[in-house]
Amino acid sequence: MNKPDNQSRTEPNAVTPRAQDYSQWYLDVIKKACLAEHSAVRGCMVIRPHGYAIWEKMQRELDDRFKATGHENAYFPLFIPLSLLTREEKHASGFAKECAVVTHHRLKSVNGEIVPDPESKLEEPLVVRPTSETIIWEQYKNWIQSYRDLPLLINQWANVVRWEMRTRLFLRTAEFLWQEGHTAHATEKEALEETWRMLDVYADFAENVMAVPVIKGRKTEGERFAGALETLSIEGLMQDGKGLQMGTSHYLGQNFSKSADVKFQNKDGRLEFVYATSWGVSTRLIGALIMTHSDDTGLVLPPKLAPVQVIVIPIFKNEEERLKIVEEAKKVAAELKSRGVAVRVDDRDGIMPGAKYYEWEGKGVPLRIEVGPKDLEKGSLCIARRFVPEIQGEKPEEQRRRRKSFLPRAEAIASIVPTLEAMQKELLERARAVRAGRTRVLDKIEDFEKFFKEEGGGFAWVHWAGNAGQEEEMAKRFETSIRCIPFEDQLPPEAKGEGNCILTGRPSKQRVLMSKSY
Amino acid sequence: MNKPDNQSRTEPNAVTPRAQDYSQWYLDVIKKACLAEHSAVRGCMVIRPHGYAIWEKMQRELDDRFKATGHENAYFPLFIPLSLLTREEKHASGFAKECAVVTHHRLKSVNGEIVPDPESKLEEPLVVRPTSETIIWEQYKNWIQSYRDLPLLINQWANVVRWEMRTRLFLRTAEFLWQEGHTAHATEKEALEETWRMLDVYADFAENVMAVPVIKGRKTEGERFAGALETLSIEGLMQDGKGLQMGTSHYLGQNFSKSADVKFQNKDGRLEFVYATSWGVSTRLIGALIMTHSDDTGLVLPPKLAPVQVIVIPIFKNEEERLKIVEEAKKVAAELKSRGVAVRVDDRDGIMPGAKYYEWEGKGVPLRIEVGPKDLEKGSLCIARRFVPEIQGEKPEEQRRRRKSFLPRAEAIASIVPTLEAMQKELLERARAVRAGRTRVLDKIEDFEKFFKEEGGGFAWVHWAGNAGQEEEMAKRFETSIRCIPFEDQLPPEAKGEGNCILTGRPSKQRVLMSKSY
Repeated sequence: MNKPDNQSRTEPNAVTPRAQDYSQWYLDVIKKACLAEHSAVRGCMVIRPHGYAIWEKMQRELDDRFKATGHENAYFPLFIPLSLLTREEKHASGFAKECAVVTHHRLKSVNGEIVPDPESKLEEPLVVRPTSETIIWEQYKNWIQSYRDLPLLINQWANVVRWEMRTRLFLRTAEFLWQEGHTAHATEKEALEETWRMLDVYADFAENVMAVPVIKGRKTEGERFAGALETLSIEGLMQDGKGLQMGTSHYLGQNFSKSADVKFQNKDGRLEFVYATSWGVSTRLIGALIMTHSDDTGLVLPPKLAPVQVIVIPIFKNEEERLKIVEEAKKVAAELKSRGVAVRVDDRDGIMPGAKYYEWEGKGVPLRIEVGPKDLEKGSLCIARRFVPEIQGEKPEEQRRRRKSFLPRAEAIASIVPTLEAMQKELLERARAVRAGRTRVLDKIEDFEKFFKEEGGGFAWVHWAGNAGQEEEMAKRFETSIRCIPFEDQLPPEAKGEGNCILTGRPSKQRVLMSKSY
Repeated sequence: MNKPDNQSRTEPNAVTPRAQDYSQWYLDVIKKACLAEHSAVRGCMVIRPHGYAIWEKMQRELDDRFKATGHENAYFPLFIPLSLLTREEKHASGFAKECAVVTHHRLKSVNGEIVPDPESKLEEPLVVRPTSETIIWEQYKNWIQSYRDLPLLINQWANVVRWEMRTRLFLRTAEFLWQEGHTAHATEKEALEETWRMLDVYADFAENVMAVPVIKGRKTEGERFAGALETLSIEGLMQDGKGLQMGTSHYLGQNFSKSADVKFQNKDGRLEFVYATSWGVSTRLIGALIMTHSDDTGLVLPPKLAPVQVIVIPIFKNEEERLKIVEEAKKVAAELKSRGVAVRVDDRDGIMPGAKYYEWEGKGVPLRIEVGPKDLEKGSLCIARRFVPEIQGEKPEEQRRRRKSFLPRAEAIASIVPTLEAMQKELLERARAVRAGRTRVLDKIEDFEKFFKEEGGGFAWVHWAGNAGQEEEMAKRFETSIRCIPFEDQLPPEAKGEGNCILTGRPSKQRVLMSKSY
């Protein structure tokens, strides 16, 4: 049952190659990086410290952007009375099938078995929030009277629950962590501007922090948020050729203000219903991060989201060496820390350097500094990159050599920040190149079929003029769906212009983005 | 129904004086400061942006301290399977009466009414976590094999639910936000050290950040956390003379590792059960903050927890003045911001300066800077403090004068940081003085009675050697309880030494701390 000591923190945790089994690779990367695992509760995950530290970094970056655009955080109840959730009809039917329902508020021992106390049955069941529009708008009723109270720009960091039958760590779990923005505006124009603005915030975060390129666009009617008039999304392409919806921003019109009866007195003194938006991203983003950048060695992290950007590993053979080397390692770390680098020294006893390299590589740490007796003697340091830009046809051992550089100490220290910045850019470029290689502009259904059935698929720009039934037909035949109707500026030049629906041949004004998806 | 425009954000929200009705005063302060309010869900509060911003400041300060003492954050499921929660017997019976229980996972329309779908009944009910020991230790089983995996030092920021019949904003609500530390150790000694260390972290935070002096001590057996071998707490004294438990740190021994079967291989190769601690503070601390410092004008905040430390208010009569004055106000704010001050300019249109003063005073902002045409002309600024140290017998208008200073611009700007630091100290001193004035060393039950029934009560240091029944007798007669058995160094000199129980006369080794409580 128990593992030998020296393996408990450094067990090999081999990663299945992507090419062999992508789903298993994903789980292996998560396991090796200690990001998350399943729990004793069906469909609920445990986010382990390394995974949570990445989420905290994401939160900080997003929260700064929300505050810079005028939003404040608040907190609303976990529970929503059933009558409140079901007041907006479309919203209710959209979430009814995945609600965790609280019905009792006490336990009792009956014949030695502990059960919910029948006498504690609630008069009205409470739903664990799947999203908070209804409970928040109930509160906004008290906060909004006049145009002077608008816009009301609020965000909430919270856990939500959507009962899912098939779950997958980070991508789809019964409980997940997210942020949900809920804003109220005096005019449709302002609310629409907010909806677009927050999508831009998400796209900026995805590209410039996560290093994941995304396509911005509108969702089709069938894919809209339950209760929204318009749903915008950012869509990323994962390494297996599947699309992933990474964030959504909804224009809710007056649907929720009407169902909660939230009116305001406008500048002319007339009463009007308020215009609303909501927008959210979740811990699903960690899934996107993994599936965009990681490799067969394990997790790869963009420096901006790496809880540890540089790991310093002392190498020594005896106690005398150890003292000197660990001291030097700590000095190096202190110098990097003063330059704003998130750095750690791994001076754990009884674990070989190689095992440490393996562990930190698996955790996605961008840079490793090795400090050994020779380095100390020469006044140099060895820096190893987690990844380098790929060169076509290069052999693994050549790449391995290229990942390491031996530099004079001062030069090495000075190189760290620029190297991290370069790596951040390289990841985005690599992800862009991967996406470009898996993107097609397609006009014939045979080419579409070939792309998705023989060539592994990816993003397909196609003209579409089909109906809901025909969308389903595409899903059945190719497992593809319309990821979004892209904004005009998101289309590559060769995909612009009018044409004919790839399935029906009917005229189409603009291409849509199709792919398989998560 | 609708209020006139100019009142919606500046309505008078008068605060009931403490002396008149303390409970109403507490609610009025919360309302005027826009900290929180009741929600549509029984017992659940909404934390409004200003209240949440204070919580975020608390979180940042606490989180830094947790990380500095080697802890990492993680996230565990909201739901706990009933069988897991009830595995540790004492723990289960301690929480059974206040559990929100999820029994269904889907809704359904039956005769037009939406109800939990009977077919979606869960095989095993799920309890919404009242605390997470059981679910976390179930996970630790996978993480701990060897002494090398210890100590495991984890903290979680989360929402928890304890069904309460009588609720009070921040102090006692069905759902609240908190942090819960859960650590695992190889020896009893290390676990006990951790229990004491985290109590010290809490005490340091209470005194040096919240400016609330606290007494550290052990809880009596009857007040221990369900499943703990030892519960330590910090106890504050509120302005109405009641004690408030502000944080607890528990030594759990091997109770939870035994019920979850978490063993590790020690250095000698033998299998042993792990030793555990848990510790937590919650949004209740915001209640402590309010009740320690606030006055009949509204909220008073220690500068270290003030989301806005300085509010700059431009004063002008016409558009020409407005442009110049607002420009100057923004310059002043920018200079303060560069010194690390959290500053805001209130340049809202259509609200009189007096109304703005009133609003920001109610929100507890420590310093106000008024910028008017004369200040601009003279090159001076007016700084108004939210409070000054009290002088016995001083008239209100004298104090009001003393709160304002008119200083040359550069001097005024340079004075802000030291003034905020001074105010932080003054608050702690004031709270210490209030506590000293309401603390008694008592030996006779008649004096005890007089203190609690005629003099408003407070903290009483008394010798105690009674049993549980006699504790109840004290509760019935005086509404008092043993807040804690203080650590030796927490007793004032005049309270040290042995003596005789105030109720039974039996010999007692040490005094305990008694008070009414929340």
